[in-house]
Amino acid sequence: MANDLLKGKRGIIFGALDENSIAWKTAERVHEEGGTFVLTNAPIAMRMGKIKELAEKTGSEIIPADATSEEDLNELVTKATEVLGGKLDFVLHSIGMSVNVRKGRHYTDENYDFTTKGWDVSALSFHKVLQTLYKNDAMNEWGSIVALTYMAAQRTFPDYNDMADNKAYLESVARSFGYFFGKDKKVRVNTISQSPTPTTAGQGVKGFDGFISYAEKMSPLGNATAQECADYTISLFSDLTRKVTMQNLFHDGGFSNMGVSQEVMEAFSK
Amino acid sequence: MANDLLKGKRGIIFGALDENSIAWKTAERVHEEGGTFVLTNAPIAMRMGKIKELAEKTGSEIIPADATSEEDLNELVTKATEVLGGKLDFVLHSIGMSVNVRKGRHYTDENYDFTTKGWDVSALSFHKVLQTLYKNDAMNEWGSIVALTYMAAQRTFPDYNDMADNKAYLESVARSFGYFFGKDKKVRVNTISQSPTPTTAGQGVKGFDGFISYAEKMSPLGNATAQECADYTISLFSDLTRKVTMQNLFHDGGFSNMGVSQEVMEAFSK
Amino acid sequence: MANDLLKGKRGIIFGALDENSIAWKTAERVHEEGGTFVLTNAPIAMRMGKIKELAEKTGSEIIPADATSEEDLNELVTKATEVLGGKLDFVLHSIGMSVNVRKGRHYTDENYDFTTKGWDVSALSFHKVLQTLYKNDAMNEWGSIVALTYMAAQRTFPDYNDMADNKAYLESVARSFGYFFGKDKKVRVNTISQSPTPTTAGQGVKGFDGFISYAEKMSPLGNATAQECADYTISLFSDLTRKVTMQNLFHDGGFSNMGVSQEVMEAFSK
Amino acid sequence: MANDLLKGKRGIIFGALDENSIAWKTAERVHEEGGTFVLTNAPIAMRMGKIKELAEKTGSEIIPADATSEEDLNELVTKATEVLGGKLDFVLHSIGMSVNVRKGRHYTDENYDFTTKGWDVSALSFHKVLQTLYKNDAMNEWGSIVALTYMAAQRTFPDYNDMADNKAYLESVARSFGYFFGKDKKVRVNTISQSPTPTTAGQGVKGFDGFISYAEKMSPLGNATAQECADYTISLFSDLTRKVTMQNLFHDGGFSNMGVSQEVMEAFSK
Repeated sequence: MANDLLKGKRGIIFGALDENSIAWKTAERVHEEGGTFVLTNAPIAMRMGKIKELAEKTGSEIIPADATSEEDLNELVTKATEVLGGKLDFVLHSIGMSVNVRKGRHYTDENYDFTTKGWDVSALSFHKVLQTLYKNDAMNEWGSIVALTYMAAQRTFPDYNDMADNKAYLESVARSFGYFFGKDKKVRVNTISQSPTPTTAGQGVKGFDGFISYAEKMSPLGNATAQECADYTISLFSDLTRKVTMQNLFHDGGFSNMGVSQEVMEAFSK
Repeated sequence: MANDLLKGKRGIIFGALDENSIAWKTAERVHEEGGTFVLTNAPIAMRMGKIKELAEKTGSEIIPADATSEEDLNELVTKATEVLGGKLDFVLHSIGMSVNVRKGRHYTDENYDFTTKGWDVSALSFHKVLQTLYKNDAMNEWGSIVALTYMAAQRTFPDYNDMADNKAYLESVARSFGYFFGKDKKVRVNTISQSPTPTTAGQGVKGFDGFISYAEKMSPLGNATAQECADYTISLFSDLTRKVTMQNLFHDGGFSNMGVSQEVMEAFSK
Repeated sequence: MANDLLKGKRGIIFGALDENSIAWKTAERVHEEGGTFVLTNAPIAMRMGKIKELAEKTGSEIIPADATSEEDLNELVTKATEVLGGKLDFVLHSIGMSVNVRKGRHYTDENYDFTTKGWDVSALSFHKVLQTLYKNDAMNEWGSIVALTYMAAQRTFPDYNDMADNKAYLESVARSFGYFFGKDKKVRVNTISQSPTPTTAGQGVKGFDGFISYAEKMSPLGNATAQECADYTISLFSDLTRKVTMQNLFHDGGFSNMGVSQEVMEAFSK
Repeated sequence: MANDLLKGKRGIIFGALDENSIAWKTAERVHEEGGTFVLTNAPIAMRMGKIKELAEKTGSEIIPADATSEEDLNELVTKATEVLGGKLDFVLHSIGMSVNVRKGRHYTDENYDFTTKGWDVSALSFHKVLQTLYKNDAMNEWGSIVALTYMAAQRTFPDYNDMADNKAYLESVARSFGYFFGKDKKVRVNTISQSPTPTTAGQGVKGFDGFISYAEKMSPLGNATAQECADYTISLFSDLTRKVTMQNLFHDGGFSNMGVSQEVMEAFSK
C-alpha cells in the first residue's frame, strides 16, 4: 500500500531503535508514501540500535540528539531543515523510559531522582521538542506533530508505574502547546494512544506478555500492531486530517471503550 | 488531491441533500479516491435535494430509503450489494432532524411525540442501519462505518435542544454495536464529532451564525469545513485506520479541548 | 449514622420496589437524616413490591404514577407539594427497564417497539420528570435532582444491551436540562453511575453474578453497595454539594478508572 | 451548618495561607464538623501567612514542612499522628505554584529549571505525600485523601501555563496511587476540580479577573466559592462517600460540561 500521501513532505522521527519500534515502522511507511526525514535518537540508544540500517534503507540522515537537552534539540532542528531543504511538515515523538521501572522500584516506593529523570525523558522532552520547533519557526503551515502515548494516562494498570503519570503530562503538553501551535503556526499536535505493543521498550514492563493477551481478548478488533500504528500515523501526517488537533486518539482495536468483553469474562470465569 | 485510497471499495452514503452537505462532499471525495457507492436519502429529502446531479457526477445509483424503516433499509442493503457487485466496505450515516427544533419548541417544553420522532430519525436510525448490515452480513472484513455527530452530546449548547440527547444516543450505539461488529465481522464503527458546519440542515438551529463565529474564535485552527470533514472521513474509510473503532473522533480545529481562547476572552471583554 | 443533613427538606423518590432497591435504601436514609418525601412507582410495580411497608416505616405517602405519562407526573408533582407542605428540595429517579433484555432479544436483533418502550421508560421518563418539575416551578432554589445510571453509557458491556444507549440518553438529559434548571431555578441535576448492584431489577441481566464478581475484583475498594449508594445520594441532596451540577459521578469503588487490576490479571491468567 | 460529620476524625491540612485559601475555609469547616487536624505549610509560606490565627481558632498545631522534602514529610506524618493521638482519616493537599508564571515566562518560552521546580511543588509533592502516608501506614481504613486541581488539566486556558500540565500529572497520581491505597489500605484518593477561585495564589495568574467573570457567566450555577469548596470537601472526608475513589470531581457550577451559555453568547456578540 503506497499512495504518495506524504509526497514532498519533510520531517523528523524520534525513537527508532530496531525493527520492532513503532518509530521504525513509521519511518518505513513515511518513506513509502514519499516523505523524507531525519532520524534521531539518544546517542546511547543509537549504540544499541540498528538505526543505520534504517537510514540506509530510507535514504535518511541520522542526527543524534538527547531529547532532554535544549542545545541538542536546537542543533537537530537547525540541521534537519538544512539537510531536508526546507521547513518541516511532520514530527514523531516516540520516547519513553522509566528509571523506576528499570530499577524495579514499585510505584509506592519511588526514588524521586529516578522519577524526575523518567519524567524529563518521557514527558518534558515533548515540550522541549515543541518549544524548539516553535522558537525556530521550523514547521510549515498545516504541519502535523504526533507523540505516542498509552491509556495508563487515563486508567490504572498496576505495573505501568510512573509512566502513567508521565504519559498524562505528555498528553497535557500536546493540548497546551497544541493551542499555541494551532493559533500561531497552523500546526496540529496530537497523541496516539496505542495498544500495548511488543516493542523492545515495551517488553521491559513486568507481566507484559500476560497483559498483551488480556488486551487482545478485551479488544473487539484485537490489539493494534506497530505496523498498523505506522499506518495510522501516516493518516495523521497527511492532509486528510488538517483540522484534528489537541486530541488524544485511541488506536487500540476498541479496548479504550470496553467495559468487559465476552472473551475476558469467559477466561475470567474459568 | 487523490491517491486511490478507496480503490475497489464499495459503500452506501446516507444524507447527501445538496452541495453544502457533508455527505455530498464525502461522496465527491470517495469518488475521487476510486470508491463506488450507492446514494440514499429519505424520499421526501430527495424531492427537495439535488441528489441526481451528484449521482450523475459520480456515476452512482440512487436508492431512496426511509432510514427509520427496517423494510426500506433491508431493501436498500440488498439492492446496493447487487448494484455494486459485492459486499460493502464503507457506510456513512449523516442523518439528523429535531421536530422540536423545527416547530420552535424549547428544550424545557418538549412535545414528546416530536421528541420520539426526532430520536427515531436521528439516533435509532443508526442502530437500524447497523442491524440491517449485520443481519445481512453485508460488510466486508475491515470495513468502516462512520456516523456524524456533534459535541452537544458531551457538553451543553442551549439551542441544540433534543439533538444533544439524540447524538448521545447515537454515539452510544456506535460503541455498543461497534463491539459486536468488531468481534463478529472485523468491521469498525466510529463517529466524527464535527465543528458546527453551515449545511442546509445545520442552519435550522437558532442563533447558528453567531455560534459559528464563536466556535471559529475558540478553535485554534478554526472550524473544520464540510470539505475537510469529507477528507477526514476518507482517512477513516481507508486502510490506514483499521484498528480505530468505537471512538468518537473530534474534528473541530481543537474546540473540544479548549477551556477558553485568547480571542474569545478578548471579544468577551469588549 | 444520622446527622440531620436533610432536616426540613422535602422530595419525591421514584423506584423503590423492595428492600434491595437503591431507592428503598435511599428513602430509609433520607428519613434518618430528617427529610420527608412522597414515594412513587408505576402502578404495576407497586403491586409486585412491598412499598407500603416502606411508606409506613418512614411516615410517607405513596402516589402511584407512570413515569412515561405527563398527566400522571403532573398529578404526582402537584399532590406531592400539597402533601409535603411546600416546594421540593430533592428528587431521586431510579427507573430503568429494557423490554429487549426481558424478552431475550440480543443487541444485534432488537425489536424496535421494545427498544422504544424501554427508552421511554428508562431515559425519556427523566426528561418528563424534569419538565414537569420545571413547568410547575416545583423545586426550591438549591434543590438537587439525582438519577441513577451505569457506566455502560461510556463503555461496552456485552449483556447490557440497549440499556447502555438508554443510560447515555439519560445522562445527556441530566446535562441538557441541568443547564436550564441551574440558570433559571438554581437547581442542580446529576447522575450517579453506580457499581453493578444485586437489586431485583439488576438481576434480570444475563450473567449478572459473574459480572458482579468481576467488578468486585476490578475495583480497588470493591463494588459499592445499595446502602453506600444511598449514603452518597444523601451527600448530593445535602447542602454540602450545592455547586456540583451536570455531572455524571462514578460511585464504584474505583472501577471506572481501572485499566486492569492485579486480581483480574491473576484470575484471568489461571 | 454543622452536623458532626467528622466527629472523631483526624487529619492533616496542607496549604492554608490566609482567609482566602480554600485550605483555610476547609480547616474551619472541618473544625465545625468535629474533626481535629494538624496544619502545615512550607516554612516560607508560613512567614507570609496568618496561619497561627487559624491554628488558635481551631485548636490545631502547626507543623511546618516543605512538601517536596521526603524528610520533612516523614517528620510531619510521624508527629501529626502523635499529636492527634492516632492514625489519620483525612488529608487535604492544596499546593500549587508555577515559577514560569511568577517570572512571566510564556508557555512557549519555558525555563525548564522553573518548570521542574513547579512540577516538584505542584504535582510530585502529591506523590510524596501519598508515599509517606503509605509507607508509614498512617491512614485509617476508609480514610479519604483529597487534592485540589483545575480543569486546565483537561482543557486549555492560555494563561494557565505549565500549571495545566502539573495538574494533569497530579490527577494521574491520584488515580495511580488511588489504586494501591484502595486495594492495600481501603483508603480513597480523589481530586476536586474547582472553579477559578480568587485566592491569594489564584490571583497571580494573568487576566484572572476577566476569566473569573467569564467562568461565572459560563456556569449555570455560577462559580463555586472557596467556602462551597470547603463544604464539598467535607462531604468527601465524611463516611457518605466511602466508595468514591480515583475520581476527578468537578465542583464548578456546571462549567465543565458547558459548550457555551446564553450569557456568554450574548456578551460575546455585543
